[in-house]
Amino acid sequence: MIKEYVQKLKNKKLILPAWYEADKEVVRMLDQTELPEETYLSLTSVEEVAEAIVDMKIRGSGAIALAGIYGIVIAALKSKGNLDRILEARDILHQTRPTAINMHETITSMTSDLDGFTNKELIEKIQERAINIMDKQLNVEIQIGKNGAGLIEDGDNILTICNAGAVAGFGFGGRTLSVFRTAVESGKKIHVYASETRPYLQGSRITAWELKKFGIPVTLITDNMAGALMQKGMIDKVITGSDRLAANGDTANKIGSYMFSLVCKDQNIPFYVSTSKYNIDLDSRSGDDIEIEMRDSSEVLNINGKSIAPDGVKAIYPGFDITPNNYISGIINEENVFTQPYTEKLAKLAKKI
Amino acid sequence: MIKEYVQKLKNKKLILPAWYEADKEVVRMLDQTELPEETYLSLTSVEEVAEAIVDMKIRGSGAIALAGIYGIVIAALKSKGNLDRILEARDILHQTRPTAINMHETITSMTSDLDGFTNKELIEKIQERAINIMDKQLNVEIQIGKNGAGLIEDGDNILTICNAGAVAGFGFGGRTLSVFRTAVESGKKIHVYASETRPYLQGSRITAWELKKFGIPVTLITDNMAGALMQKGMIDKVITGSDRLAANGDTANKIGSYMFSLVCKDQNIPFYVSTSKYNIDLDSRSGDDIEIEMRDSSEVLNINGKSIAPDGVKAIYPGFDITPNNYISGIINEENVFTQPYTEKLAKLAKKI
Repeated sequence: MIKEYVQKLKNKKLILPAWYEADKEVVRMLDQTELPEETYLSLTSVEEVAEAIVDMKIRGSGAIALAGIYGIVIAALKSKGNLDRILEARDILHQTRPTAINMHETITSMTSDLDGFTNKELIEKIQERAINIMDKQLNVEIQIGKNGAGLIEDGDNILTICNAGAVAGFGFGGRTLSVFRTAVESGKKIHVYASETRPYLQGSRITAWELKKFGIPVTLITDNMAGALMQKGMIDKVITGSDRLAANGDTANKIGSYMFSLVCKDQNIPFYVSTSKYNIDLDSRSGDDIEIEMRDSSEVLNINGKSIAPDGVKAIYPGFDITPNNYISGIINEENVFTQPYTEKLAKLAKKI
Repeated sequence: MIKEYVQKLKNKKLILPAWYEADKEVVRMLDQTELPEETYLSLTSVEEVAEAIVDMKIRGSGAIALAGIYGIVIAALKSKGNLDRILEARDILHQTRPTAINMHETITSMTSDLDGFTNKELIEKIQERAINIMDKQLNVEIQIGKNGAGLIEDGDNILTICNAGAVAGFGFGGRTLSVFRTAVESGKKIHVYASETRPYLQGSRITAWELKKFGIPVTLITDNMAGALMQKGMIDKVITGSDRLAANGDTANKIGSYMFSLVCKDQNIPFYVSTSKYNIDLDSRSGDDIEIEMRDSSEVLNINGKSIAPDGVKAIYPGFDITPNNYISGIINEENVFTQPYTEKLAKLAKKI
């Protein structure tokens, strides 16, 4: 069942960050830490899938959820439908990345209400649920792409940061690359500036690689160049993804996004956030309620394993910043493109999960 | 004469980017491309000095002028005061970096009105002029330090970008580090956030190294983190250097400075530019008249000699951006700290060269 489904996916124009290879009974996963070099892992158990998530071999909220799905699937198949083993797999995955809400909700729903089924039925049920979720999430990416593409004009130069793309999602194009590819597939010519996104370089290593795969012209810049390019009139609009939206539309996204929104405001350039119902956090009333994740600062001090600073100098690494809702020209999502005021619209969308 | 002067400099608390070593008849130069590793070059001729300038072994408008001075000095000494050789040295240096105004003016004034002197007199005259200019320029750095330090409060957290420091100047602390060291030497405790300054990493490689040498606590960040830090109230003021000021105060400085000024405006944090009469360009009425230098994009595509992007992806590299004068809270200089309106004050200062 999952075998045929994966085969179907492989025939579509997708860039899959992970899939189940039934013949070899392994989860295959693109190692995103090695990009732009394409290296694929073969993971034989849920434990190995969990380790890959922890080591950030796979990243992006959608892609982590996808890895979680395959973690449950491989546990169900290898244990021949043993319920204890399935629930244990869920617990192992829950311990990987605490903030990966999409994954936590996905694997919880996949593993709930499983009492009273035979082992054979469990194997089928898990695969059915996996396929169902993947279908839904891929469809969300396709819809985001359609709605966002409506904003793009022929000839646009668009700036983006980090990677809200296919390998951060379920393979179509995630939250932002889906907009770019849909615009291009509808016949519009665009050119994308990818901001490199220090320290992890998702922009240069991943987004530039994906855009090249999709055949979309891309120029790489460092994150501090966005202002100069907009001053010179080289950018028509900015589109970024979103780690999390507060109820009022304040958006936590990759470090640097807030500064891009300020340049847009100063230069009268539209700043769009692309998101989905899975990224809205109604428990945070505004950006003030979102805690900024402080990450391991060694990534700032070293590039490609080589130190770039004198010995003994320390660094810090806040993972994201907050773009206030009043600097956001529109919120692209699977239903529509929302404009101000955002609060009611976001509340309605979030309730559709 | 120059020998004794260099000895005097070495007894002061300076970080010299270059000096003349009379015993060995060489110009010694800190290779800034290798920092934070300390490597010193021994240059035996004006041709080798010029090559080091072209290869950016020495950078920063003051330090390039200093290299120019020593280029003329070594030509005068080695040729035993041959005027043709001195003027040839000047021409060689003029061809190194077209935008290095400070150097061009310095070596022009050093080599003008030299007719009618004996060789022995020429040797003395060149050394005299060299010493005189170095004294003046070091004094400018000291005065900038004093005036800027008046703005600093005990306990301040200050953000800076790039390196407007000792090795970018004549050794005291250039335009910005002079402010930090003077504040600290007057008993104030400060902490500096150094923005790494991609692609060339002057912040992590050079500013962090200088601050450590001066014993000033420093934390390294990537350029895209400035917004998050200011949102969290972690920064009290921003002080940057200036490549060039237009007549109205619009400032061309290292790429990224403009974005920092926008965050300061949004978060009500003072944004200061430190400069000198040598950096004011009255021929540019506003920032619109300043042409943005486009540099070799391979620096964006590679870090430490290793590619960070897929093959075939292109990049661009504007070297600086323009901070509009109305986003600048004050212009620190060797005379004072100017506040708005800037035009008349800058015109007066520029005329004092």
